[in-house]
Amino acid sequence: MATVAMVLGLSLFLGWASLGAEAEPRPPNIVLLLMDDMGWGDLGVFGEPSKETPHLDQMAAEGMLFPNFYTANPLCSPSRAALLTGRLPIRNGFYTTNAHARNAYTPQEIVGGIPDSEFLLPELLKKAGYVNKIVGKWHLGHRPQFHPLKHGFDEWFGAPNCHFGPYDNKARPNIPVYRNWEMVGRFFEDFPINLKTGEANLTQIYLQEAVDFIKQQAHQQPFFLYWAVDATHAPVYASKSFLGTSQRGRYGDAVREIDDCVGKILKLLQDLGIQENTFVFFTSDNGAALISAPIQGGSNGPFLCGKQTTFEGGMREPAIAWWPGHIPAGRVSHQLGNVMDLFTTSLSLAGLKPPSDREIDGIDLLPAIVRGELIDRPIFYYRGNEMMAVRVGQYKAHYWTWSNSWEQFSQGIDFCPGQNISGVTTHSQEEHTKLPLLFHLGRDPGEKYPISFSSLEYQNVLLKIFPIVEEHKKTMIPAEPQLNVCNLAVMTCLMKRPGMNRKFDFQI
Amino acid sequence: MATVAMVLGLSLFLGWASLGAEAEPRPPNIVLLLMDDMGWGDLGVFGEPSKETPHLDQMAAEGMLFPNFYTANPLCSPSRAALLTGRLPIRNGFYTTNAHARNAYTPQEIVGGIPDSEFLLPELLKKAGYVNKIVGKWHLGHRPQFHPLKHGFDEWFGAPNCHFGPYDNKARPNIPVYRNWEMVGRFFEDFPINLKTGEANLTQIYLQEAVDFIKQQAHQQPFFLYWAVDATHAPVYASKSFLGTSQRGRYGDAVREIDDCVGKILKLLQDLGIQENTFVFFTSDNGAALISAPIQGGSNGPFLCGKQTTFEGGMREPAIAWWPGHIPAGRVSHQLGNVMDLFTTSLSLAGLKPPSDREIDGIDLLPAIVRGELIDRPIFYYRGNEMMAVRVGQYKAHYWTWSNSWEQFSQGIDFCPGQNISGVTTHSQEEHTKLPLLFHLGRDPGEKYPISFSSLEYQNVLLKIFPIVEEHKKTMIPAEPQLNVCNLAVMTCLMKRPGMNRKFDFQI
Repeated sequence: MATVAMVLGLSLFLGWASLGAEAEPRPPNIVLLLMDDMGWGDLGVFGEPSKETPHLDQMAAEGMLFPNFYTANPLCSPSRAALLTGRLPIRNGFYTTNAHARNAYTPQEIVGGIPDSEFLLPELLKKAGYVNKIVGKWHLGHRPQFHPLKHGFDEWFGAPNCHFGPYDNKARPNIPVYRNWEMVGRFFEDFPINLKTGEANLTQIYLQEAVDFIKQQAHQQPFFLYWAVDATHAPVYASKSFLGTSQRGRYGDAVREIDDCVGKILKLLQDLGIQENTFVFFTSDNGAALISAPIQGGSNGPFLCGKQTTFEGGMREPAIAWWPGHIPAGRVSHQLGNVMDLFTTSLSLAGLKPPSDREIDGIDLLPAIVRGELIDRPIFYYRGNEMMAVRVGQYKAHYWTWSNSWEQFSQGIDFCPGQNISGVTTHSQEEHTKLPLLFHLGRDPGEKYPISFSSLEYQNVLLKIFPIVEEHKKTMIPAEPQLNVCNLAVMTCLMKRPGMNRKFDFQI
Repeated sequence: MATVAMVLGLSLFLGWASLGAEAEPRPPNIVLLLMDDMGWGDLGVFGEPSKETPHLDQMAAEGMLFPNFYTANPLCSPSRAALLTGRLPIRNGFYTTNAHARNAYTPQEIVGGIPDSEFLLPELLKKAGYVNKIVGKWHLGHRPQFHPLKHGFDEWFGAPNCHFGPYDNKARPNIPVYRNWEMVGRFFEDFPINLKTGEANLTQIYLQEAVDFIKQQAHQQPFFLYWAVDATHAPVYASKSFLGTSQRGRYGDAVREIDDCVGKILKLLQDLGIQENTFVFFTSDNGAALISAPIQGGSNGPFLCGKQTTFEGGMREPAIAWWPGHIPAGRVSHQLGNVMDLFTTSLSLAGLKPPSDREIDGIDLLPAIVRGELIDRPIFYYRGNEMMAVRVGQYKAHYWTWSNSWEQFSQGIDFCPGQNISGVTTHSQEEHTKLPLLFHLGRDPGEKYPISFSSLEYQNVLLKIFPIVEEHKKTMIPAEPQLNVCNLAVMTCLMKRPGMNRKFDFQI
């Protein structure tokens, strides 16, 4: 059956490709639906018991499910930088050297952002005639030079950072919301989010932004829509009509609203008759934030820990590809995928090659998506400047373990609530470089049963993994870190950087 | 949409029912597929990442999924007694008074079994003309008077207990396998299970037994097939052609083989044209046995702990109803269900009423299955003679907590590996009767965040739960315990019972 589908997929793909030989084909539109802190286990199709995501489940039934899809970093900001550059955060600068293995993000007191030297997906897509829009959260730097419209996007509605931030501090104003170059208001003030009830109509605004853009572009130039909504990031919010409708509480309300929006977006593509010319991919930026659970946090299903950690719960993401007529319906791909692949895959869809002057970590998933192939590739799990773990096939080797610090833990912050694997979920940074902790993720997705060091299996697997890691480390040239923390009082960074005494907000 | 389907379901159901007014209708055949130690999270449709159960997932797509379906006890033997009697083990005698809150089962050194005074489902179905077959594990007593053919079954191929047992002890021979009244061999000797490789062709034999019975009965009397395979109980086994084929190791191989068999059984019903006259239900006897994981144990998905415990991982079961033409395809029912409901529902399908001279805990699920109704009912979680917890709506109150004993724990036996919720996963028996631990299973399916005792929510919910528990306890008349442990040396039980000096095997 796989063969039939593969042949079918192949012929469809070739059909679209061969079209190009005759007339300049219009490359497919690209819609990336990126969720915020949504966990692998939050969708019905990934086993959420309330089964409240009928549209996403339907998207999977009509498309392809990826149960082995990862982020490049268990935190929003670096994950998004990786998605848009196709490169690990340590290569594109979205990490810190302030402290070993520390996750960092904006709007921490950093002055960095996405460097001009990086090629972002929308910049490159422009070369193939795409019109690009970002809706929602940018998170690639809040200073003027990092503005999305300076990095390839033609339109933007959203905020430089998440709505999480200093919203309750009048000395440092709430987070600005932009329409293109213009600041049109601030979260909590002009775009209200009721912290008590969770009511906000932002997701509906983001839906409308997507709908308007799709309609406007449907029969014009090809488009790239990056729909980066943040309703599932604490403080979680939903519109009035969704509040209180979930079995799962407020977080579930937000998921239900997003699910509804995704259904409306896919239906719009169908109503406009452009579904066969629009590639849609749904995923999340990192695992569910268990520190916000249960009211404001999602589910990582059977996986260990959550956001901020390099365990599966922190980095394995829900993922669905949808492209009627090109992807055979109802498929599951066990391809090891990564958000960075969306960069390379999107370029491939546009008929472009990725930049050849730099290391690109993302691979082209089209052979996996359209022809059902499996491409052998490792997955690297980073925290800040440290490669913590690697997955090769079904095996995952932890070189470093660290869930959260004793300091945080004693304050009640726990990235792994209720989960304690001796020697694995550590509260200090533990190095295992000489004898990595090894897990088989097929039979032990929860990383609960380390494989015995003395077993033949351990030895054989490590022999395979060692050269892959060695090669990776040998060729790794870290970029200048963009997320080093500054001293806010004097606005000087712990590591010197140019232009560090600017303000945080865009000054345009 | 729900309304349309409900009306459709209703009309189909009434169509079948009204047929009865004209000519004596043949009631539908009933096929109960009961798994052994299979966990909620073991099916693709319930979020198992390997997605290796295409036939069961298809069964759900064509039928109705129950994400809130429970067993009556987190251990094989009492669970099966409950399924076949529609009554809690404490009512039908499948518990012990040897120790408080202890789970007990056969083939422990007990002399009891299902009492003659209990009405078993096949006994009752006989009254409506059904021919009944059990394939696989009986587990309701291994002495002659408890033989399945003495309790309503017309045919049997299988063993009185699980293949787990004294198979490596020549002084106490391996577990016998029966065809009807006759012992036809023993596990490990005549029906080999290779402990090293896991190879055994038993599931194929059980499939053939089902196929032969269905073919034989298809156009004769209505039939009840109770397919109680045990391949997923440690020591886990699979046929040669399935061994090594799963991403999940040997346990996954067994799941894949069972999935394949279920697909073949459903296809046979369709090929014979009797699918619209055959009600099929798939579920498991208790949660995955995490002490056997990862090689020989399954997954409880996002739920806490496993077999033997009254946490969700021990008692929530995968469950799918399938009845083409009567159950609208692809539905999810959030009805709180229980294996005991299969007793009452099967009687209802056969046009029979449950016995009125005793307490029946199982409810008729047909309104939920055919018309999409939701029936309000509590779920009681028992360990042995103690009601440990109760679920009312989305809330679960723990009156007692106990994962496993310190004694077991210090020996390395852990029913909750890697899971430690302070005050919840206790290694001694903790009573919370005055202030039950309360969880909201919708937003916290993993039972990780007890609701604050001082909250209004806690107080309101307890006010609702207290009278339900009080009523339950007031009307509870425990039966004579059947599973009290005997002193093997002299074959006298700690609690005196008649006939206690018989041998273990059937003596027919």
